[in-house]
Amino acid sequence: MCQLLGMNSSKPAGVGFSFAGFAERGGRTAEHSDGWGIAFHGADSCHLIVDHRASIHSPLAMAFKESRLKARNVIAHIRKATQGDTSVANSHPFTRELWGRTWSFAHNGNLADFTPPSTGRYIPVGQTDSERAFCYLMEQLAARFAAQPARGALYAAVATIATNIAAHGVFNFILSNGDVMLAHCSTRLHYVIRQYPFAQARLIDTDLHIDFNRHNHLDDRMVVIATEPLTSGEQWVALTPGQLTMFADGVPQHAPAPNGRPRRLLLSY
Amino acid sequence: MCQLLGMNSSKPAGVGFSFAGFAERGGRTAEHSDGWGIAFHGADSCHLIVDHRASIHSPLAMAFKESRLKARNVIAHIRKATQGDTSVANSHPFTRELWGRTWSFAHNGNLADFTPPSTGRYIPVGQTDSERAFCYLMEQLAARFAAQPARGALYAAVATIATNIAAHGVFNFILSNGDVMLAHCSTRLHYVIRQYPFAQARLIDTDLHIDFNRHNHLDDRMVVIATEPLTSGEQWVALTPGQLTMFADGVPQHAPAPNGRPRRLLLSY
Repeated sequence: MCQLLGMNSSKPAGVGFSFAGFAERGGRTAEHSDGWGIAFHGADSCHLIVDHRASIHSPLAMAFKESRLKARNVIAHIRKATQGDTSVANSHPFTRELWGRTWSFAHNGNLADFTPPSTGRYIPVGQTDSERAFCYLMEQLAARFAAQPARGALYAAVATIATNIAAHGVFNFILSNGDVMLAHCSTRLHYVIRQYPFAQARLIDTDLHIDFNRHNHLDDRMVVIATEPLTSGEQWVALTPGQLTMFADGVPQHAPAPNGRPRRLLLSY
Repeated sequence: MCQLLGMNSSKPAGVGFSFAGFAERGGRTAEHSDGWGIAFHGADSCHLIVDHRASIHSPLAMAFKESRLKARNVIAHIRKATQGDTSVANSHPFTRELWGRTWSFAHNGNLADFTPPSTGRYIPVGQTDSERAFCYLMEQLAARFAAQPARGALYAAVATIATNIAAHGVFNFILSNGDVMLAHCSTRLHYVIRQYPFAQARLIDTDLHIDFNRHNHLDDRMVVIATEPLTSGEQWVALTPGQLTMFADGVPQHAPAPNGRPRRLLLSY
């Protein structure tokens, strides 16, 4: 299995602190040493770095930690191979262009007997069930909409497609088009909101702590999504299995109600 | 304008030496400081790094130089913006997936009034004439072939499409699908073959020299393509304007004859 990290923010933000803890799981505090990758969505672009080496041994991961890249949406992944060998082609996130935007996708789980039909528009480059699922998702979206739909319509379509794919196995994923972030929980996925008043957090995986009050402005707001909570000192919320959540501008748009039934989507269609 | 670097090799090879000289032109020995990028084609994958900063100031470029990534096809680019602002979305190389392979493309030149028709399958993410040309090229190839054609048929198709696009301006480009490398010369593009007996070369842009005999095996063979020759001590060949050249396994497959007319294509269709 793998671990996922996502960040969706109201303003361009760095992800160095969370990535520092996350990268430790790529071979040091957890055995996810079969590659790592990160997709960085700028205003209208996507910066992708993938490496088939463990993140703790990757000079690219080191350079990334030292760079001060900022983005409103980031997806990162560390891999423990289940299907497909250890190569760049099999390292998440995967990216494709649709409607003139770059989409990125990372998956945690395993899909059995998943060989969906294809129009040939999006064909996997590697051998993973994950990239097959992403290509199928992109083809299904392309078939439904000729251009980027409104956020609510996009949410509804991805929710339907994700439910169909999840029938084949464990399908935790994070998807972004640079505008919103969509997170589907099949078994395990958590998020935390960082906004005023900011907490003091300590990374679980490495000896690093941060006082977010000293690094953020009053109107900063971001959500961090991760397979397992990355910090102590913050309120991590477990996503409900079987549910897709959309994050935009640093807040969940579709929060699960206490009784487990989804609340009304907080979007205008 | 921009500068291009390509490498096509018979075996997976590092590109560190050539890249070291090339990266110097990104803000130090030449004013191509509006971004840089490199696409690294593995067996069935493509590793892309792009940065909107000058290559001499980029921690990612530094990490790349220190990493020992090897590939059979590499395309790199340093940018001096002509169309589109300085951003990741406008940094070459551009990549797209076609027929289950990742294609990479970098352009040097400027196309005027180039707004080709589009089926909507490949839509530019950024604002450059270069990415428009690449998307058009991909759409035209997808329309001609349902799956990866033989090398000769691919060459003929790309040559036709490139000639059409080049009617709009200066169109020096390098394109790779990870198998072959296609270089189109509109005004300036050079290549050098490195094979036994290997030369001793000195980088023009930085104080670095290399004895390729000490770093290569007898059966190593690679071609390096660059806008301007990168080294002294080697025989750089100028490509003929108006001509597309295909490189495979470290050799040009289609060399210009001395009288300027193209020689017969050295491929079996």
